[in-house]
Amino acid sequence: MSEPIIFYDLPSIENIGTWSPFTLRTRYSLNIKGIPYKTVWVEYPDIAPLSKQIGAAPTGTGADGAPLYTLPMIYDPNTKTAVSDSGKIARYLDKTYPDTHKLIPAELDVFTAAFEDAFWGAFHRPDLVPVMNLAVFDILPPRSQSYFRRAREATFGTTMEDLAPLGSEKRANHWAKVRNDASKVAAWYEADGNKDKTFVLGDNAGVTYADVIVTAFFGCFRKGLGEDSQEWKDIAAWDGGRWKRLLAAFEKYGAVDAGEELKLQL
Amino acid sequence: MSEPIIFYDLPSIENIGTWSPFTLRTRYSLNIKGIPYKTVWVEYPDIAPLSKQIGAAPTGTGADGAPLYTLPMIYDPNTKTAVSDSGKIARYLDKTYPDTHKLIPAELDVFTAAFEDAFWGAFHRPDLVPVMNLAVFDILPPRSQSYFRRAREATFGTTMEDLAPLGSEKRANHWAKVRNDASKVAAWYEADGNKDKTFVLGDNAGVTYADVIVTAFFGCFRKGLGEDSQEWKDIAAWDGGRWKRLLAAFEKYGAVDAGEELKLQL
Repeated sequence: MSEPIIFYDLPSIENIGTWSPFTLRTRYSLNIKGIPYKTVWVEYPDIAPLSKQIGAAPTGTGADGAPLYTLPMIYDPNTKTAVSDSGKIARYLDKTYPDTHKLIPAELDVFTAAFEDAFWGAFHRPDLVPVMNLAVFDILPPRSQSYFRRAREATFGTTMEDLAPLGSEKRANHWAKVRNDASKVAAWYEADGNKDKTFVLGDNAGVTYADVIVTAFFGCFRKGLGEDSQEWKDIAAWDGGRWKRLLAAFEKYGAVDAGEELKLQL
Repeated sequence: MSEPIIFYDLPSIENIGTWSPFTLRTRYSLNIKGIPYKTVWVEYPDIAPLSKQIGAAPTGTGADGAPLYTLPMIYDPNTKTAVSDSGKIARYLDKTYPDTHKLIPAELDVFTAAFEDAFWGAFHRPDLVPVMNLAVFDILPPRSQSYFRRAREATFGTTMEDLAPLGSEKRANHWAKVRNDASKVAAWYEADGNKDKTFVLGDNAGVTYADVIVTAFFGCFRKGLGEDSQEWKDIAAWDGGRWKRLLAAFEKYGAVDAGEELKLQL
């Protein structure tokens, strides 16, 4: 590998580092593998033009039928390849840089794909989406925030302010469901009766992409809500403290080196 | 191990062997491990009294709040232990008979628990449940059939005959959704671009309980619908024939040795 990979991430108003549960997966992936990279912060309105510029495929289809472009995305100058979707990026990095820590060993590929669906499937979307969206809304820079507001308010049919205000009964009800759903995930970790495992493979077999998925999810809440919020304190205490413990074990993989940032060029 | 395990399974009118997607898991588990066992066929109305008699825990709570007793269930005379729930049985057998083939290696325990949720979560229940229930209804012996009819008609609010008759548009719509959901599962197998894997760990690393879950699900449709039915022919062709291929690879693990049957004693 001669040149650093370019990693496109979503900025925050307070420069608190990566907050998206999806781009955080790629930052963890790159840091776990120790692959050199530079971060480019990309505001929401710039994602589609940038993707087209560097030749990244859309990751889905919007409600209007148009191609959907999302972050995370990387551009690897060594292979002249653009890749979006955090799972595809992890598989690309495993394959292209086989001497780095494997995030998805070949025999765990099916399990990992199923785990990703199982993890998001465990959370009832109508409860999760409002609280997660609100957690990140306040930390977005102005251009991203306007874009996010426009898109989300169209989806929800209500203003962000009325969606599920902090302290409201609506918010408390959503939160109770999210809490309950988290315990369904905790039950997977404890299916064999051992409540002490932090990582999906157990604590002696190494970190995999499944751990990345879980940690990035709770990491999003921590960044968005702030460590002083009551809701973060709730999460930290859920399920015997396992999510806080997991995030602590991942602390070393979350770093953004400010010296390694590039400006977006469109 | 001195004495064979007693395996409690659900009978069919045509003695076609195990058809339940849950008891089939345990038959596969026992046969894969090569653990000696004898089958006792238990009609639906006898499950609760039998469970209480041998001291098996309920596996859930019914709609009326009462404890729910289900098959599969085993009684191990060597340890004087009754276990119900196919996942708990697999873990019990792995632990109690450590020299047999491991269905859930320790490092795969979390992945396997998540896989089980992911697999059933992939199928939209309001479409799956009617077609799966109808597939098994016709092969039940009279006592089980009456019991099944009473329970299911109360749930569905319609007669079994009107639920989704073969040839109806309703049935075709359910079936189209089940077909679509199966392809979501197929996508896990092919996430790394390799379309040829039959087993979850790939084809060189051995069979695990995750394979048992998938095979028992499609095996239920094969037994219930019959291999000559159009719907079974559909499944056999879905997703490049992967489900038919999987069942063929499991053929040797599905055997019921008629000489090893015991009569239920209540």
